[in-house]
Amino acid sequence: MARAVLFDLGGVLLKPGLQHFLSACERDWALPGGFLAAVLDAGGSQSPWSRALRGHIGLSQLLEELDERCRARGRSQGVAIPEGFSASRPFRELRERGRLDPRLLSAATRLRGHGFKTCVLTNTWVDDTSWRSLTAALQEQLRRHFDLVLESCRIGMAKPEPGVFSYALEALQARPQEVIFLDELEENLGPARELGMATILVRDTESALRDLQELSGIQLLGQEEALPAPITPDEVAHGYVTIRPGVRLHFAELGRGAALCLCHGFPESWLSWRFQMPALAAAGFRVIALEMKGYGESCAPPDISEYSQEQICKDFITFLDKLGIPQVILVGHDWGGAMAWNVALFYPERLRAVAVLNTPFRPPDPNSDVLERLQRIREFDYQLYFQEPGVAEAELEKDIGRTLKILIRSSSPEDRLPFDLDFHRVRERGQEPGNGGSLGIWGSPGVWGIPWDLGDPGNGRSPGIWGILGLGDPLGFGGFWE
Amino acid sequence: MARAVLFDLGGVLLKPGLQHFLSACERDWALPGGFLAAVLDAGGSQSPWSRALRGHIGLSQLLEELDERCRARGRSQGVAIPEGFSASRPFRELRERGRLDPRLLSAATRLRGHGFKTCVLTNTWVDDTSWRSLTAALQEQLRRHFDLVLESCRIGMAKPEPGVFSYALEALQARPQEVIFLDELEENLGPARELGMATILVRDTESALRDLQELSGIQLLGQEEALPAPITPDEVAHGYVTIRPGVRLHFAELGRGAALCLCHGFPESWLSWRFQMPALAAAGFRVIALEMKGYGESCAPPDISEYSQEQICKDFITFLDKLGIPQVILVGHDWGGAMAWNVALFYPERLRAVAVLNTPFRPPDPNSDVLERLQRIREFDYQLYFQEPGVAEAELEKDIGRTLKILIRSSSPEDRLPFDLDFHRVRERGQEPGNGGSLGIWGSPGVWGIPWDLGDPGNGRSPGIWGILGLGDPLGFGGFWE
Repeated sequence: MARAVLFDLGGVLLKPGLQHFLSACERDWALPGGFLAAVLDAGGSQSPWSRALRGHIGLSQLLEELDERCRARGRSQGVAIPEGFSASRPFRELRERGRLDPRLLSAATRLRGHGFKTCVLTNTWVDDTSWRSLTAALQEQLRRHFDLVLESCRIGMAKPEPGVFSYALEALQARPQEVIFLDELEENLGPARELGMATILVRDTESALRDLQELSGIQLLGQEEALPAPITPDEVAHGYVTIRPGVRLHFAELGRGAALCLCHGFPESWLSWRFQMPALAAAGFRVIALEMKGYGESCAPPDISEYSQEQICKDFITFLDKLGIPQVILVGHDWGGAMAWNVALFYPERLRAVAVLNTPFRPPDPNSDVLERLQRIREFDYQLYFQEPGVAEAELEKDIGRTLKILIRSSSPEDRLPFDLDFHRVRERGQEPGNGGSLGIWGSPGVWGIPWDLGDPGNGRSPGIWGILGLGDPLGFGGFWE
Repeated sequence: MARAVLFDLGGVLLKPGLQHFLSACERDWALPGGFLAAVLDAGGSQSPWSRALRGHIGLSQLLEELDERCRARGRSQGVAIPEGFSASRPFRELRERGRLDPRLLSAATRLRGHGFKTCVLTNTWVDDTSWRSLTAALQEQLRRHFDLVLESCRIGMAKPEPGVFSYALEALQARPQEVIFLDELEENLGPARELGMATILVRDTESALRDLQELSGIQLLGQEEALPAPITPDEVAHGYVTIRPGVRLHFAELGRGAALCLCHGFPESWLSWRFQMPALAAAGFRVIALEMKGYGESCAPPDISEYSQEQICKDFITFLDKLGIPQVILVGHDWGGAMAWNVALFYPERLRAVAVLNTPFRPPDPNSDVLERLQRIREFDYQLYFQEPGVAEAELEKDIGRTLKILIRSSSPEDRLPFDLDFHRVRERGQEPGNGGSLGIWGSPGVWGIPWDLGDPGNGRSPGIWGILGLGDPLGFGGFWE
């Protein structure tokens, strides 16, 4: 029974593979077909190529030696090495133009979700070149998507050496019969098959997925639109900032680039953003999912004045100060959205942009009594229910597990709490889903409020967030970035 | 007895002030001298200027209204408003060209170090313009340097309204007689003096410092080369990453921009970098001061294999993965330097650059027995002393306070532990300070090792680090950045 899958990288997960770029360079430089591959392969286990794959030399040195050998081979075979020739070009292009196959990546995520261990097993080199940042980005992405990334240059052995496969089995804690191995080279599959692994020779994605589906018993074809994998608490950094004595805020952090702060609503936590965090980090943002005051690992001071919008906004500015971040992109949902609007109003300097899900902008009205208005419109009645200290606490704490389940998961009429969250009420009214929430976008120099379907608030998978950040958004929000 | 100081911003801490840019624009646009200031001042407390200073309108609206009023005044006075005129220009130039006065900033830091509360008290506006990021950077810098930053637009009152000063006294928890107030406008000083504050009319930095020195009783002149203020644990964010079950690393974090990771030596902690962290953050780096495995709030697993260089380097890569950071600038000192060199050797992809203090690069030599070598050269004898489990623990834990004090602070011959750290031994040998350590710099494409004076290791105030990062470094390290 299969329970682990080994994926080759170049030509399988990453396309096209090195061979494609070698051939393209040969054509461009009018070299005989196979000239570069022949130089790579010449010399057996002591060749520069073989030494690089086992990590004995780095890519810089490999390229230097290849350059020399190409020129020597050119001289001995009467092949003209053109002006501008450099052995580094196909290696650099591999990094610049190679792309991870989204269908195979999605299949790996799906298998992992079904309990399979997933592993990249690749013949590769230590990249110490000036374009190594591209390799770093690839490595970081692979290490996020797979349980294990085994690189020949860091284990000192290369496929098809049988030792590689024993190493992989040991690392996976699996028996050969439990492993499926995908590679584009038949010569690499042989030793794995001999050990007892199931193997797939990868010609194209479609047939590879079909074989993998059959061997794993997991539906993979037609599943390419799978949800992105959510992040778990152990997969991110957890930060803590002391705002002042007795007031400490917790946040989860992932990624590098422009700081983007996510503020959840009621009754949620930073974990509400678990689907968005990895996607936003991959899109180039440093994501800071703040746990709001009163929730989770952030403090919950008893003094009610701690929860005024004025104090919460001031605390947020201090939070940025202590992180040393002058400006942030602020994304709020529900009550987090209310704070986002207020920060935008009173501290616009500190925001590069603000996006709010499900909380339309309402200009503050000093002449309106909020509580009176709530009582009149009978919406958000949980806010009224919470006014009498002790009542809600007693009822909700009777069975905290049930309370949380109903609050966050359930919308069935049988599971009812003594109050309604707004989205329940909206459903009861039979409103169209498109009117269930609204999306507001603010940038310099104005304010917009746009109706938007939030889907199911509380499940953390709102489509809105993608649009807001210009990741394939018809609104073209990118135009508002400074 | 003075114990708090209020500093005006524009024209005092920040130079030049708005008046300078108004005058320069008037000259450029061939407007009568004082034309712009007259438009600003016209209309009293209901003027756009006055409303902006009290936060009733933002800067965008102020500039729109000023534009209109300038044109109206031009028409009524027969003054030609030139093509390209915009009231926003002096306000934008103020942010683009205004600089904090380093001598006054240093004096404020010094006063703060002597227990004075320091406060910025400024008439200013909410900046919602497209250049608000410049204002954000200024605000963040001020809020880091001063105990309190009071902005008229956020307290709803502007100098010289007496309420401003009562507000400041309340916020500082001080009596007027305990406060010194510096402003460049005599009209702002009046009400403060009437309350009982000591006031300084600021004409130039030199005489302002002289007056401030006299009133505070603190030596301020000739002290401009003061050390930068170190950061305290509560002034930064603290992060935690679970590398794998049972292994958790702690770090302190400050700043935004390219990630820069600081790795301390033995026997230290992240706090060793308390002087460098704020300076590096101000220089545009996101500083991550890692607490190494075995120290402080990071875990100290008992299994000795956890401390192999191989495992420590692997853990560091996982640390970067979980933070979602593909590449980092890695700075190591002492044992942290050893790790930095090894990460550079085995995972160069993940480093944008590496800089090492006090640990020369020694290529790994598989034929050399490290322990045998240590015994032969009799250097670093603490490493030998630590080999027998239990011995060092018993002795050092007899009086942990004394042990730590001697390890970190003392170099007197009376305070001795049963072993020598290398820098003690170097001193005993009477070597020149310049040979006490060495600085290695590695970037693409080579390796350098440069002798460098570390000063007193363990005090966290090495001059070397400044040089490494190209902050006024004769080595011109900046040239190695990609």
